[in-house]
Amino acid sequence: MRGVVQHAPGDIRVEERADPMIVEPTDAIIRLAATCVCGSDLWSYRGVLSYDHPVPMGHEYAGIVEAVGSEVRDIKPGQFVVGSFFASDNTCEICRAGYQTGCVNRQPVGAGGTQAEFARIPLADGTLVATPEVPPPDLVPSFLAASDVLGTGWFGAVAAQAGPRKTVVVVGDGAVGLMAVLAASRLGAERIIAMSRHEDRQHLARQFGATDIVEERGDEGIARVKDMTEGLGAHSVVEAVGTRESMLQAIGSARPGGHLGYVGVPHTVELPWFKPFMSLAHLHGGPAPVRQLLPEMMDLIWNRQIDPGKVFDLTLPLDEAAEGYAAMDERRAIKTLLTI
Amino acid sequence: MRGVVQHAPGDIRVEERADPMIVEPTDAIIRLAATCVCGSDLWSYRGVLSYDHPVPMGHEYAGIVEAVGSEVRDIKPGQFVVGSFFASDNTCEICRAGYQTGCVNRQPVGAGGTQAEFARIPLADGTLVATPEVPPPDLVPSFLAASDVLGTGWFGAVAAQAGPRKTVVVVGDGAVGLMAVLAASRLGAERIIAMSRHEDRQHLARQFGATDIVEERGDEGIARVKDMTEGLGAHSVVEAVGTRESMLQAIGSARPGGHLGYVGVPHTVELPWFKPFMSLAHLHGGPAPVRQLLPEMMDLIWNRQIDPGKVFDLTLPLDEAAEGYAAMDERRAIKTLLTI
Repeated sequence: MRGVVQHAPGDIRVEERADPMIVEPTDAIIRLAATCVCGSDLWSYRGVLSYDHPVPMGHEYAGIVEAVGSEVRDIKPGQFVVGSFFASDNTCEICRAGYQTGCVNRQPVGAGGTQAEFARIPLADGTLVATPEVPPPDLVPSFLAASDVLGTGWFGAVAAQAGPRKTVVVVGDGAVGLMAVLAASRLGAERIIAMSRHEDRQHLARQFGATDIVEERGDEGIARVKDMTEGLGAHSVVEAVGTRESMLQAIGSARPGGHLGYVGVPHTVELPWFKPFMSLAHLHGGPAPVRQLLPEMMDLIWNRQIDPGKVFDLTLPLDEAAEGYAAMDERRAIKTLLTI
Repeated sequence: MRGVVQHAPGDIRVEERADPMIVEPTDAIIRLAATCVCGSDLWSYRGVLSYDHPVPMGHEYAGIVEAVGSEVRDIKPGQFVVGSFFASDNTCEICRAGYQTGCVNRQPVGAGGTQAEFARIPLADGTLVATPEVPPPDLVPSFLAASDVLGTGWFGAVAAQAGPRKTVVVVGDGAVGLMAVLAASRLGAERIIAMSRHEDRQHLARQFGATDIVEERGDEGIARVKDMTEGLGAHSVVEAVGTRESMLQAIGSARPGGHLGYVGVPHTVELPWFKPFMSLAHLHGGPAPVRQLLPEMMDLIWNRQIDPGKVFDLTLPLDEAAEGYAAMDERRAIKTLLTI
């Protein structure tokens, strides 16, 4: 099969790779309907994370089940399925509490790379959620978004307790931030302030439900949010970047007793703990337990009540993955969809 | 009046000071029934925080109202009252949400120093809570504890969502940690693991409701907690120290989706944010909104259902405050009560 491999920072190639096989009896093999590039894939692309060997890329996926192992009961060949970047058993105490990314048997799906024609998904019954029927092609981008970027933004909004009568601030206008805007809107937030200084992203944020745009950053951004909230700060803040600056801006934007949901992956951030301590905000987040949210999100997509697929503003064939990475790295694209 | 003043690190003196006066019409003046030394007073005693002028010490207080300003309506001279280290209006939106330490009109009470015969309390109606009658002398230590150390430990336990069917870990065996044990017990926790390697504190922790003691610290302490919780970690963790090491131990002890309540003041801590991010725990804490908790705690004390006053293991006259500080600094005492 064809698949994306990174050989060195900035060196993305599409190569012939071995087809994935059933290894464990709980595995499934899926044929990707489409795949995509994640903001977190740029960490290794930019050399912030480094490897001493070629790495298969991608951890987002949606597609048709080709084969299942002998112990897979619920997932069947021919079904259209979506899953998360962490495989989970969905039966342990942690999963039952809704934290499948903390599953005692979790396995990263990304190891094999899902920017490819096929992918092996461990713990298929616990990981995959099937649609009622194979969806029409125009819904594929939205289902693919549910696999990570929508699920992550949604978890950020839930962790921030976005809801009716709440003012929600979203720090970060990347794909995850935009999905958090969509989620906050669906969750009934009264006011959604998107922090963005890029006109195309502002436009998309408004389409997804943002009521206000703030272009300022850092302390100026905090001051603007305070001005808009009678000096108190927002009830709910979603952090969707993962830098020290964005975390401090998010913390500073929350009112005492408010809720901050953080989903930006903070690889190297040292946080001056006095700031969140004094903020009196509730903090929650981490690697989103997308599996918990998939049934609800997929139902909304199936019934065309949300259209997260709009977040893909560049579509390329898989063989042009290198350009898809470059466009995101240079911020020419928000998120790249790769057709198979 | 007599009052405690710190002239330099380690230099605690009891001096003649001006009696406090009503300054604002919302003020009250109280005559202290007793006062005490806080673990946080040791920050300046040890020179971690430094001042270029003599500083009146103390922010914990309980006593009889001597006088009130012209706009004070609810608090009356002659009442026995307890308040928090932050004065609050108790009417703003933040106070009504239960976060009086984030009150839009908050004022530190400690500026004037409550290790003294008298103290000025701003925003008396919003800050002070009166007992039904003047309590008998043996209850005074418990009411004094409610002013900070009990309220802070209680908030830690509430922030950690300690309650029925929960395993609670308390990191820190100082006075606040011990009060968190008491609170977790009152809140109905099934199992309370106190992290302590001091026999006298272990004994007190068991009296306050600890079911288990763990002496190991750091990664070894985390491993012991995991062993005791089927490898999952605790549902609830209270952090009552405020160092990088104790925060990391607390984070590592919580299960995914669990709750960490932090009340140890982290003056200079830089936290590697990746750890709490990956933990998937809920984090909440900060300067405890003691005012929110005072009515419940004071009712339990008045009815002799809790005895937090046992946390004072050294009682000295005010004039011997210097020895009270030294004993706590050298860990000869958990907490010093100063009689007036």
